Amino acid sequence: MDYETLDPEDWANIQQLAHALVDRAVDYTSKVRDRPVWRDMPGDIRDRFLTAAPQTATPLEDILRDVDETVMAYPMGNIHPRFWAWYMGTSNFTGAMADFMAAIQGSNLGGGNHAAALMDHQVVQWLREMVGMPEGSSGTLVSGGSVANLIGLTIARNTKAGIDVREEGLMALPKPLRFYGSDQMHGCHRQAIETLGLGNRALRRIRTGSDLAMDLDALKAAVADDRAKGFVPACVIATAGTVNTGAFDNLAAIADFCHDQDIWFHVDGCIGALVAIAPENRWRVEGIDRADSVALDPHKWLHAPFEVGCALIRSRSAHLATFSATSEYLEVTKRGVAAAQWLHDFGIQTSRGFRALKVWMSLREHGVRKFGRMIDQDIAKGAYLSGLVEQADNLHLMFPTNINIVCFRCDPGGLDEAALKSLNIEIMLRLQENGIAVLSDTTVNGQHCLRAAINNHRTRNDDLELLVREVQNLAKAVLGEAGNN
Amino acid sequence: MDYETLDPEDWANIQQLAHALVDRAVDYTSKVRDRPVWRDMPGDIRDRFLTAAPQTATPLEDILRDVDETVMAYPMGNIHPRFWAWYMGTSNFTGAMADFMAAIQGSNLGGGNHAAALMDHQVVQWLREMVGMPEGSSGTLVSGGSVANLIGLTIARNTKAGIDVREEGLMALPKPLRFYGSDQMHGCHRQAIETLGLGNRALRRIRTGSDLAMDLDALKAAVADDRAKGFVPACVIATAGTVNTGAFDNLAAIADFCHDQDIWFHVDGCIGALVAIAPENRWRVEGIDRADSVALDPHKWLHAPFEVGCALIRSRSAHLATFSATSEYLEVTKRGVAAAQWLHDFGIQTSRGFRALKVWMSLREHGVRKFGRMIDQDIAKGAYLSGLVEQADNLHLMFPTNINIVCFRCDPGGLDEAALKSLNIEIMLRLQENGIAVLSDTTVNGQHCLRAAINNHRTRNDDLELLVREVQNLAKAVLGEAGNN
Ligand SMILES: Cc1ncc(COP(=O)(O)O)c(C=O)c1O
Ligand SMILES: Cc1ncc(COP(=O)(O)O)c(C=O)c1O
Repeated sequence: MDYETLDPEDWANIQQLAHALVDRAVDYTSKVRDRPVWRDMPGDIRDRFLTAAPQTATPLEDILRDVDETVMAYPMGNIHPRFWAWYMGTSNFTGAMADFMAAIQGSNLGGGNHAAALMDHQVVQWLREMVGMPEGSSGTLVSGGSVANLIGLTIARNTKAGIDVREEGLMALPKPLRFYGSDQMHGCHRQAIETLGLGNRALRRIRTGSDLAMDLDALKAAVADDRAKGFVPACVIATAGTVNTGAFDNLAAIADFCHDQDIWFHVDGCIGALVAIAPENRWRVEGIDRADSVALDPHKWLHAPFEVGCALIRSRSAHLATFSATSEYLEVTKRGVAAAQWLHDFGIQTSRGFRALKVWMSLREHGVRKFGRMIDQDIAKGAYLSGLVEQADNLHLMFPTNINIVCFRCDPGGLDEAALKSLNIEIMLRLQENGIAVLSDTTVNGQHCLRAAINNHRTRNDDLELLVREVQNLAKAVLGEAGNN
Repeated sequence: MDYETLDPEDWANIQQLAHALVDRAVDYTSKVRDRPVWRDMPGDIRDRFLTAAPQTATPLEDILRDVDETVMAYPMGNIHPRFWAWYMGTSNFTGAMADFMAAIQGSNLGGGNHAAALMDHQVVQWLREMVGMPEGSSGTLVSGGSVANLIGLTIARNTKAGIDVREEGLMALPKPLRFYGSDQMHGCHRQAIETLGLGNRALRRIRTGSDLAMDLDALKAAVADDRAKGFVPACVIATAGTVNTGAFDNLAAIADFCHDQDIWFHVDGCIGALVAIAPENRWRVEGIDRADSVALDPHKWLHAPFEVGCALIRSRSAHLATFSATSEYLEVTKRGVAAAQWLHDFGIQTSRGFRALKVWMSLREHGVRKFGRMIDQDIAKGAYLSGLVEQADNLHLMFPTNINIVCFRCDPGGLDEAALKSLNIEIMLRLQENGIAVLSDTTVNGQHCLRAAINNHRTRNDDLELLVREVQNLAKAVLGEAGNN
């Protein structure tokens, strides 16, 4: 019989192609600084993504050349030293090697009795240890921070509902649940609350103070008000590092309050939980170890290649009570490959990839302490850029920088808010189009501004100096053009 | 200033290590047949996963050696030609190269105006084309089938609720919703319904016929009954390829019924949707192109390395109406890197990995037609094993094989159900422990049995012949030991 398989007929050929790929990858990563951060795709590149599904075979070397000419040539840019948009990690070469080996080894981390599954568990425990949660806490590696938050909020919902929500659903609730987060919380919480069937209305936005951290008095008032109205205050979502400005809610105070009030204490630490390992900044997350659940994101400040997030849950039994399930085709045995607690009993996936390897290899290669120092270093870069902005003509810091997120704008004077917004957007777009730097924009205290999130192990201070110079030059150019019209 | 970075000090060293890794990977994959499928870990290997988080650095060569001695040496086994447990893909070398390059390139597929994002969209459209859904349908690549199903069911819930569920939540529903699936549906649906806050009770299990496909009359009766009681029948979950026995619900008939009744028609095609590209078997999924939503799983029958699943949604506007959201820090621009519809507007993740590349490269390398032939080939392997079982002494086929899932057991006669179960479990465990084959077990029509899911591009007929011989030998051995006691 003639079998068809995905294995190559000629292993020597694919081996040679893979070696070439390694050289290309080293070149690509080591010379990233020499390329533009981002550039727009010409029409003929875009068109190559409009073709129908390929019915017949193409030689792998041609495919790899196509990948080079398109994907590698027109990246998002987030591995570049001058990419500071949104809030992303910068990847790393060892992590890419890990993703390769994970795919070669091929195991399904749905669970089972094998080494990768033990490593998955170990990485969760390392992360637990890094944020200081107690031994016995459980956790799970997930696709990212959004799902890590969803996991925490689902357990909060089910634990605080007072009925068997899994079985009966929310319509059987005697009293509606309420969740609380600051008006600066990440958009994924709204999505989680919607997915969970609680409805956006169940998520109350608590006012923030001038530091953009949650106003505790406002929180207390909202909870008291809800209790008086017959709602059940179920969960406070505290943010350790907001996406807008890097603000930290007062975790210790919120922990006290939640404890008093029997409310689930969830920490969105996607940006800031790992500040816990950074000697100079760990004071910012004091109290995180008291959380009922924490979402964190190794693909941000550990720079693991996408994707890997992590949910940590203080109560293993509450964790399992929300997600574990047994099916007739998934019975755990006493011996053999099924002789282990299924890892999919801790979340919403069944099959799971081997995300742990890239985190494990990278933590071992550099050590936790170095990652801690690098977090401090990024925060120092944030302070450095803030200083440059404050000294520069026509640039204004919009908000005292907390960590590595710097909000500023160009304001030459005499322009109204709308004109300032279009000036700054134009500067942002030209920085991108010229391949110099990628920033994003946001609105802080009602005012539009540019935003640099320096979550980047390749950024140097001279990159930040260049940014400030280029912003000023572009401002002059844009204002000059406007003057000539 | 002295910067710390994750980039190596010496690129030549890491380059050399990566080359060695390529050779190791080629060796590992090309010689997989020569290794045991699975073997148990000795205590000292297990202990290596109990250490605390590493504070200081370890040379990368030592780390890679550890990975070799643990992870690579004690795999789950699912890339081996004689792994047939549960229902998994078998990975492939090109897919591993793709995961490597995806991590090197590092883009965040949350969206943006760059080539990887166009490729993500293209792969979704290729999959849409492969299952025959109309142009204009949307979709999203997700972590796997469980989340693909969750995406479909969330949109079904929100679309059929009759109120703004995102805003108001389920407690505002005038009438409770009901979902329907067969008693053979996958466990992830229960989990999805629970996560969505609908409650397991809202998910009615419809009786199956002797073919283990959903009994249409029972479905109709359940829907009529629910309407009479004031429930809103919202969604039928039809399965194209059940995990237990590979049964296909009658999609065309269910499509008609759902159309008549204004019910959302969701197809769980994690196992079987791609049968649509297999010339000899595509009749099994007739009607799939009429689904409102389809979940499918490239990490199963396309053998993409974990993870990649896909949700396809007929109505792009319903899809966006459930998941899209805008935040002040994520505004779409007219030019630059943010000049594109965000890809995270189609699901529950914000950051997203570049899952598309491995599917894209593999589909181009082999072509859709070859994948179609290989699906037919796996189904032929299922028939071949079934024939062997039927001819073998003391082996019984438990269920007429539909596709590539074969349910059988050893029944030497004279044993009651409990004794048969322990005999077959013992055979299953020894097959694993001897490294010969990995099967799993299940219960079909109330009877315990072994189950071989031949979703494996490396399996040959002689592997199946070996399985049958070894099962018979082990049965003799186990029964002999029992006789000697
Ligand atoms: C505070 C915060 N929470 C959650 C998230 C979502 O994380 P992810 O993009 O990994 O889903 C982000 C992403 O930037 C974030 O900044
Ligand atoms: C019919 C069916 N649906 C859904 C799933 C879940 O898919 P995944 O494991 O990719 O989450 C499976 C997994 O085997 C399945 O067989």
